[in-house]
Amino acid sequence: MAKTRIGILGYGNLGRGVELACRQNDDMEFAALFTRRDPATVKPLTDGVAVYAAADLAAHADDVDVLVLCGGSASDLPEQTPACASLFNVVDSFDTHANIPVHFANVDVEAKAGGKVAVISAGWDPGMFSLARLYANSILPEGRDYTFWGRGVSQGHSDAIRRIEGVADARQYTVPVPEALDAVRAGENPELTTRQKHTRECYVVAKEGADKAAIEKAIVEMPNYFSDYDTTVTFVTQEELDRDHAGIPHGGSVIRSGVTGAGGEHAHVVEYSLKLDSNPEFTGSVLVACARAAHRLAREGQTGCKTLFDIPPAYLSPLAAEELRASML
Amino acid sequence: MAKTRIGILGYGNLGRGVELACRQNDDMEFAALFTRRDPATVKPLTDGVAVYAAADLAAHADDVDVLVLCGGSASDLPEQTPACASLFNVVDSFDTHANIPVHFANVDVEAKAGGKVAVISAGWDPGMFSLARLYANSILPEGRDYTFWGRGVSQGHSDAIRRIEGVADARQYTVPVPEALDAVRAGENPELTTRQKHTRECYVVAKEGADKAAIEKAIVEMPNYFSDYDTTVTFVTQEELDRDHAGIPHGGSVIRSGVTGAGGEHAHVVEYSLKLDSNPEFTGSVLVACARAAHRLAREGQTGCKTLFDIPPAYLSPLAAEELRASML
Repeated sequence: MAKTRIGILGYGNLGRGVELACRQNDDMEFAALFTRRDPATVKPLTDGVAVYAAADLAAHADDVDVLVLCGGSASDLPEQTPACASLFNVVDSFDTHANIPVHFANVDVEAKAGGKVAVISAGWDPGMFSLARLYANSILPEGRDYTFWGRGVSQGHSDAIRRIEGVADARQYTVPVPEALDAVRAGENPELTTRQKHTRECYVVAKEGADKAAIEKAIVEMPNYFSDYDTTVTFVTQEELDRDHAGIPHGGSVIRSGVTGAGGEHAHVVEYSLKLDSNPEFTGSVLVACARAAHRLAREGQTGCKTLFDIPPAYLSPLAAEELRASML
Repeated sequence: MAKTRIGILGYGNLGRGVELACRQNDDMEFAALFTRRDPATVKPLTDGVAVYAAADLAAHADDVDVLVLCGGSASDLPEQTPACASLFNVVDSFDTHANIPVHFANVDVEAKAGGKVAVISAGWDPGMFSLARLYANSILPEGRDYTFWGRGVSQGHSDAIRRIEGVADARQYTVPVPEALDAVRAGENPELTTRQKHTRECYVVAKEGADKAAIEKAIVEMPNYFSDYDTTVTFVTQEELDRDHAGIPHGGSVIRSGVTGAGGEHAHVVEYSLKLDSNPEFTGSVLVACARAAHRLAREGQTGCKTLFDIPPAYLSPLAAEELRASML
């Protein structure tokens, strides 16, 4: 069978993650990169990939089977995904949970108008963690859900620290509280406050002469981001930050604790957990599996917006149904 | 919407698990029980359920929307599922992994002939564990799979002990080796022999005057079941067995350890784990979620044999697609 020709819009960490995932999958071909930068200045890792200006996307609708949108959820994807969905089969990682219904509706109308398939909110949360919640809730209707994130780098929280006066650079780790995780895994169904679930570790490079006490105060008291958490601030040099905190690890656990029986006398704990060395590479790998499914759904004549909830799991795999049943069931 | 009327064939531990799961799901109604025993002697927990002889199944094809087959994989399901699949939408938990392709083919032809939907090999392994393997393999094509079972009761191994001369009763626990599990979770990708992955704990009631040394030797040297494992045998009284080992707990972990990056430099560990107080009740809960999906697929006009690999995850849930996107994505 012909390979699925992948287009990538946006060549940051996530775009590179998608590119690397294409290289690990024989049925995928990274065919075209679209960028808002000057195409002449952007060099993909992969030889022979065409680089086009994002403004010229429409002219290349026939060059790719699935366009993977690698922009941000705050301002890029709400515009880009609907704009592209009538021209291309698309996959995005839109992750602003509260706005997913609106984004879905906006993308769905465009995808249907163009006769294309769109898969939104793919990745690990939303994405694999969402699937874990859905499956566990469908099996155990009486129970409680818990989601723990980390230990991992939060880009948003790191950015928030960098905007504080006197800060040269920063890296923030979200860390689950071990006692809380243990209690949930033991099926104790604890009531947990925000503070009891996660702590936040900040590694900060101060500018020369900056007031470190003021920086620390500004961090730990920052509303929404840090004030509801036990937050530790450690000042390091730029060299230390670059040496010890260059990676983008992340992960976490989705746990459902539920009961069955005539009187709820049997407890069950279902856990899905991820330990990821590279958040963008893992997310990119999920996006490529979704691109495979999008292409297959499109070949079947389906149209409109989908999420991982709507995709038969077998569609994510390059293996045929018979092979899957024989080897993985 | 009208409830899904569930029929249950076979009223052992699994059949009762399906019944209890129906009671936890408002959209499910346990409508009819079919048994090979004298129907007059079988009393379901649920009031008002019709009890029929298994021989009369065909006469009640219009009384249920989905028939859940709760027999064993060794001799019941290979006959029963194909025999019922042309008359009913069916769900089974066929778990002889090596024979799934043949079972699938036998059921598929009957379901298609009758215009019905069949979902086979549902439960947790095969079932939820299979899904964990499929998703993780689709995302991380370069990696290794590990499955650990337990700590939990193996019915097959318990039965094998009971067949030894001088044994009155027995209960066998399969237990993962903690060091092996830790190494896999740490991403060390160990090569593990059968003996290095699991140990087997046997609690045995000897008949009066039986030769305990001979029983222990017969257990630990039994090929396939015990000889490849480090096996411990503890003799207990029937009272102790009934008091301390009456439950049917089980569980385990499916772990995929894979890499991404230009040179495989980033490691990822994906784990799906279950801790179940009641194996048959959890399995029954999976079967009921699959019955919901089977009914929905049938209403859409689909026919033939399916597995969890073919079912869009949303079909397992009683919630509408919009609710799922708003609450779980």
